[in-house]
Amino acid sequence: MAQDKTRTIRRYERGTFVEKEDRVVVEQPLTIKINGKEFITIVCSPEYVEEMAIGFLASEKIIPNYKDIEEIRVDEKSGIVHITAAKVYPFFEQLQNKRFISSCCGMSRQGFVFAHDAMIAKKMDSTRVTLTPENCFSLMEQLADSAEMFKKTGGVHNAALCDANGIIVSRMDIGRHNALDKIYGHCLMNDISVADKVIVFSGRISSEILLKVAKIGCEIVLSKSAPTELALALAEELGITTVGFIRGQSFNVYTNPQRIVGA
Amino acid sequence: MAQDKTRTIRRYERGTFVEKEDRVVVEQPLTIKINGKEFITIVCSPEYVEEMAIGFLASEKIIPNYKDIEEIRVDEKSGIVHITAAKVYPFFEQLQNKRFISSCCGMSRQGFVFAHDAMIAKKMDSTRVTLTPENCFSLMEQLADSAEMFKKTGGVHNAALCDANGIIVSRMDIGRHNALDKIYGHCLMNDISVADKVIVFSGRISSEILLKVAKIGCEIVLSKSAPTELALALAEELGITTVGFIRGQSFNVYTNPQRIVGA
Repeated sequence: MAQDKTRTIRRYERGTFVEKEDRVVVEQPLTIKINGKEFITIVCSPEYVEEMAIGFLASEKIIPNYKDIEEIRVDEKSGIVHITAAKVYPFFEQLQNKRFISSCCGMSRQGFVFAHDAMIAKKMDSTRVTLTPENCFSLMEQLADSAEMFKKTGGVHNAALCDANGIIVSRMDIGRHNALDKIYGHCLMNDISVADKVIVFSGRISSEILLKVAKIGCEIVLSKSAPTELALALAEELGITTVGFIRGQSFNVYTNPQRIVGA
Repeated sequence: MAQDKTRTIRRYERGTFVEKEDRVVVEQPLTIKINGKEFITIVCSPEYVEEMAIGFLASEKIIPNYKDIEEIRVDEKSGIVHITAAKVYPFFEQLQNKRFISSCCGMSRQGFVFAHDAMIAKKMDSTRVTLTPENCFSLMEQLADSAEMFKKTGGVHNAALCDANGIIVSRMDIGRHNALDKIYGHCLMNDISVADKVIVFSGRISSEILLKVAKIGCEIVLSKSAPTELALALAEELGITTVGFIRGQSFNVYTNPQRIVGA
């Protein structure tokens, strides 16, 4: 399916309106059915939807083990991903009864809001990867270079899984954490280890992004934007290094600076 | 509750790390209970939470009539809003059984994804308000001027309800549509009509923002960012005027140009 569509718009410039062809980013609702039962609908950019479904179900620990997925079939026309799985999280049915906005959120040690998040987000207490300031700038720059759709339409989030040297896989999506689910799904399908890598993200580090990074199992998240206080409280608790406002020749290290050389 | 918190961070600038006090935007999970039953948890900025709960329940037509709310009590410590209501949407209990990411999404005439959205988003076929190009620039500028929290912390969305002359009420929130719910709640509580006004938004016009604008009942939405294709398809169907990329001396009119003078 196309990532963007051409539209005829009216552009106002220097005092006059002109008709113009413009490219607009596409978003599409995608419904995941597990063993015939409707589980969730996610609004996303319509590419790598198989990766997204796999990454979402694994990172949210609905189907934690990729090998338990017996069949995956994407019906592009109806926007449904049919999953056949041998083993599904036993509380799957109960989860369906919990309605919420934002796929996940937490609240530091005072108690997670969703018990499910508390169960699956684990503390990172090792230091498997370190970055120099030069690595931080270089990775942010590489993410910007890879963000072609953003340049064309100005409407998506970009994320990349990196090591100190560069990008291993990058994905874009209209939804903030869908890009991370796509990356995780890609890694599971291609047997790429995530634990010793870094997430570089184009947008704000909110609590849901931080929790998604934790669920995927990365120790460091870099962003050119701001983090939120709840995200930082969670990052402290979960042992994740957050680096924000990577712009020009400066950036901020907010939590767990031990993984940034010199900080 | 404080809108931002001060943190000690490590800032990298011109080759060295320095410790520095920094302000970080706060986000907080807020749970709405209706008549004693847990309904939904929304992650939001902790201000005007009463307005947000009222605006959310009214725009989503859970409690469409503000007068049906008999009591509202905010327990700041536990993050719970207790609502006592005489009349609640009859399918309230069934809605609780539908789990989804993104509070709402739709799919043009081909069929809305959520039947509930299709029922409550009504077509705007009148033209109760028109704007000149100068109005568009001026309103966007006024929104930017009012966005103080954004300047301090770089982490929130801003929205304003305006007429052609200026801002009537503006709200900010970490969550994209929470700012709109706060505005709608404010209008309900203060008996301000919404139908002849304009929404000005700092971020991208996604399908959920467009649907929220429709549910609130506004005819025009202005943004300095890009719209998505799904948002534009919905805007066409629902009769809403979308104006994007209002920057410098230019902007784009994407749908229903009849409300922008000269377009």
